[in-house]
Amino acid sequence: MQIAHPYLLFLGDVPDALAAKTAIGIVDWRRDWCIGQTRLDGCAADTGLPDRTIQEGAQNGARTMIVGAVNAGGLLPGHWVDSIVEALDAGLDVASGLHVKLASIPAIHEAAERNGRMLFDVRHNTETFATGKGTKRPGKRILAVGTDCSVGKKYTALAMDKAMNERGYTSSFCATGQTGVFISGRGVALDAVIADFISGAAEWLSPAREENQWQVIEGQGSLFHPSFAGVTMGLLHGSQPDAFIVCHEPTRTKMRGVETPLPSIQQVIDMTIACGKLTSPDIRCIGIAVNTAALTEEDARSYLAGLSAEYDLPATDPVRFGMETIVDRVSQEFGAP
Amino acid sequence: MQIAHPYLLFLGDVPDALAAKTAIGIVDWRRDWCIGQTRLDGCAADTGLPDRTIQEGAQNGARTMIVGAVNAGGLLPGHWVDSIVEALDAGLDVASGLHVKLASIPAIHEAAERNGRMLFDVRHNTETFATGKGTKRPGKRILAVGTDCSVGKKYTALAMDKAMNERGYTSSFCATGQTGVFISGRGVALDAVIADFISGAAEWLSPAREENQWQVIEGQGSLFHPSFAGVTMGLLHGSQPDAFIVCHEPTRTKMRGVETPLPSIQQVIDMTIACGKLTSPDIRCIGIAVNTAALTEEDARSYLAGLSAEYDLPATDPVRFGMETIVDRVSQEFGAP
Repeated sequence: MQIAHPYLLFLGDVPDALAAKTAIGIVDWRRDWCIGQTRLDGCAADTGLPDRTIQEGAQNGARTMIVGAVNAGGLLPGHWVDSIVEALDAGLDVASGLHVKLASIPAIHEAAERNGRMLFDVRHNTETFATGKGTKRPGKRILAVGTDCSVGKKYTALAMDKAMNERGYTSSFCATGQTGVFISGRGVALDAVIADFISGAAEWLSPAREENQWQVIEGQGSLFHPSFAGVTMGLLHGSQPDAFIVCHEPTRTKMRGVETPLPSIQQVIDMTIACGKLTSPDIRCIGIAVNTAALTEEDARSYLAGLSAEYDLPATDPVRFGMETIVDRVSQEFGAP
Repeated sequence: MQIAHPYLLFLGDVPDALAAKTAIGIVDWRRDWCIGQTRLDGCAADTGLPDRTIQEGAQNGARTMIVGAVNAGGLLPGHWVDSIVEALDAGLDVASGLHVKLASIPAIHEAAERNGRMLFDVRHNTETFATGKGTKRPGKRILAVGTDCSVGKKYTALAMDKAMNERGYTSSFCATGQTGVFISGRGVALDAVIADFISGAAEWLSPAREENQWQVIEGQGSLFHPSFAGVTMGLLHGSQPDAFIVCHEPTRTKMRGVETPLPSIQQVIDMTIACGKLTSPDIRCIGIAVNTAALTEEDARSYLAGLSAEYDLPATDPVRFGMETIVDRVSQEFGAP
């Protein structure tokens, strides 16, 4: 799956920014891939991109319209279908992160056929994966793991990949979730893979590289989340990381969506090593990435300094303070670029 | 999914017994549900059931023909399709454990429609599952776990369920693999569930019961298998077992299908408790079930006695020596029926 850019981001008429978080994530990381946003009457989300009709998007060179918003209930409203058909008729491919398959809707399927355009459903994999093999492959890999879901693993991995490249390492980002796939133009929504093939899909998406080439892999779930730990485990085994970064949100007390208490950072480090060494015997933690949005800058600095002393690891907020200290740790542990 | 019996077992023309292991597993545990086997010319497998044509099967009361064999390559040969259509025309439902979906083959789909019969593809789930919640639910659960795949977890769970009922406990077997689904008439092939829903599917298949009712749950994979540990993890979290039995095959040195060395029984006990206590805080090991087929009876007894002393747990071969000692342990730890 390789999604062509420039993108036109379709936001529909969603009632708030949260419903458009996929589009907002794309703009955060790939503004230069985006030529505009298309919003229907009543849309309350705004990515900050220029508003364009679908026709204007096509005239300005857009190659793919991304359905970057989710409506309530996960279904595709009739007037969104009309917009998607219009995009296909205007010569764009269409990519969606919705649960419903674009091609399952006859009007969309027919419009794609009629125009010879591609439909991408990033929540539905068309790739056939082998089961994971666990054989150590060359190249260096960093995985973002978390004390919970939605604690900044994608952001951390993207920021780490960017910082690594800026410091002279050869690094690429491996997407494992839908927004990440749009940001990188390829990847696998791991949570949508058939269970038998989780680690195999993770092996596929972070393949063998030269020994001095790095891949930074977006994490999924948490080994301590009772809904999603199976995905996390398969990703850990399949990506066989040389190093991992623990992502954390300090104000949370329960795992997202359930009543399970949050684990400590130490528990996550210990369990990630205990499980991860099956396929990566020297796996180690190289840093802690914290979403400190709820803290003042002074409190955030103090909190991170405390974590750093407690764990003997660099601790940072990727948004506020960057990833330099964790790249320093890579340099210390694995050598300069 | 509830598959009606009596069953007629279709073996096709497979070249060896291994290709018919699903049918053989059904006969091992549900001979009284089976009214015969249907074999095509050249079939080298034999379940020991009387040979019957499809017409004879229907006349003798069969309600479902089970495709209990796999052909090389996983595809469905044309002459098997003919037999399946014949069964549907004779008024039987058809259930299959093949990777290919029965309904995806036009002749089969049409015959099912024409006759108003059901098609069951146990490798493809039609149920929609919620994500796992991790909330402790009433009832007692025992999970079979393993040092590897294919070490007797299904057999152990079925034998444990049977022994529990014979000793006066109220117990039911929960199938998590295709043969188990045929044996119990219901269940979920967990390896075919979408990754996000593994633990949710496990919660669905071992639902709340009265506090003194038991469920014995078929295990899948191993926490130490680099291909399938994600499935094992989700099943462990979702089934939230009060107790588990470690299954082991003593002659194996590498995990099935990969180069990863086998873990020790102690490693499996420790990791199962470390991960399982997330949803079942008092989880404990109640026994070790060993496939001693490769040992003489004397060697087997000596080996099991050694394990029992080493781990302070009952150790048995379910086939040779039964599950009595592990039921004794249940009685000691959880009380009489």
